[in-house]
Amino acid sequence: MTGPITINPIGVIHSSLTESQGTPIQPVYAKGSDGVVEVFEPYGQALKDLEGFERIWLIYWFNKARQPKLLVKPYMDTAERGLFATRAPCRPNPIGLSAVRLLRIEKDRIYVTDVDILDETPLLDIKPYISRFDRYDVQSNGWVDQMSEKQWIADDRFQDGGEGGD
Amino acid sequence: MTGPITINPIGVIHSSLTESQGTPIQPVYAKGSDGVVEVFEPYGQALKDLEGFERIWLIYWFNKARQPKLLVKPYMDTAERGLFATRAPCRPNPIGLSAVRLLRIEKDRIYVTDVDILDETPLLDIKPYISRFDRYDVQSNGWVDQMSEKQWIADDRFQDGGEGGD
Repeated sequence: MTGPITINPIGVIHSSLTESQGTPIQPVYAKGSDGVVEVFEPYGQALKDLEGFERIWLIYWFNKARQPKLLVKPYMDTAERGLFATRAPCRPNPIGLSAVRLLRIEKDRIYVTDVDILDETPLLDIKPYISRFDRYDVQSNGWVDQMSEKQWIADDRFQDGGEGGD
Repeated sequence: MTGPITINPIGVIHSSLTESQGTPIQPVYAKGSDGVVEVFEPYGQALKDLEGFERIWLIYWFNKARQPKLLVKPYMDTAERGLFATRAPCRPNPIGLSAVRLLRIEKDRIYVTDVDILDETPLLDIKPYISRFDRYDVQSNGWVDQMSEKQWIADDRFQDGGEGGD
């Protein structure tokens, strides 16, 4: 089965981030950036038991991403890298993945922080962050290991209509 | 934008796992389970620079999953949990997420191990596993923290046509 797949968003992510320029590129750089995940009916009941988790994976659709590119210059780097070796949003299937911090759940709204996701982003799935499944002590992070640690912030290079970076 | 989204698989995952019965439920329980990720043309060049990473995220489509359920009894538990508090495959959008170990890349084929993914699974995206983005020291893993550590193996409860678990 390799034909097209149709997916319907299960919700929408609200945040204070309205454009990629200046947006933190990952949750780890998004301290204090709050958001609300609105889950559509009838999915609210599927949030049962989620509140005990410290972090949750949000899987979402980069709806403001540019057309896909196979080689990109990541925010963190000045060299051109293969797209799949980066987390850039301009992907063949622009699926985003962020482990945000769960604050509380009220009915069908999940209050979260460490949010690196633009406002009004369509939500595809939610999974609990589970240490024994997701936390790996890897020795090698490829080209990223050569980059210096700093607070990386996005510009508009991957945003639809943006000017930077191309 | 909350309307339907169309996605086209970028490849297919090959493994020795042909049915969910007996399949490891996560990469951490899939030591020695090898697989090959076949990336379709023209995406091969987007694999540049990926080989330096020890682990990669595969994002895929659970094409053999049953119809979605909002409450499920996870493999690890005997209680019914909200679906989004589990990693069960029978999701509204049956998107799978596994951090597999990268062995080597030959052209458009990625050789991997620790594979918990059924053979012929459609691939949606590939991302590098990056410690500083993905490795969180969480204190709380919700209901999972109450479960004893053992080698969990799936049965067919979530597979289309399966008999177990419902």
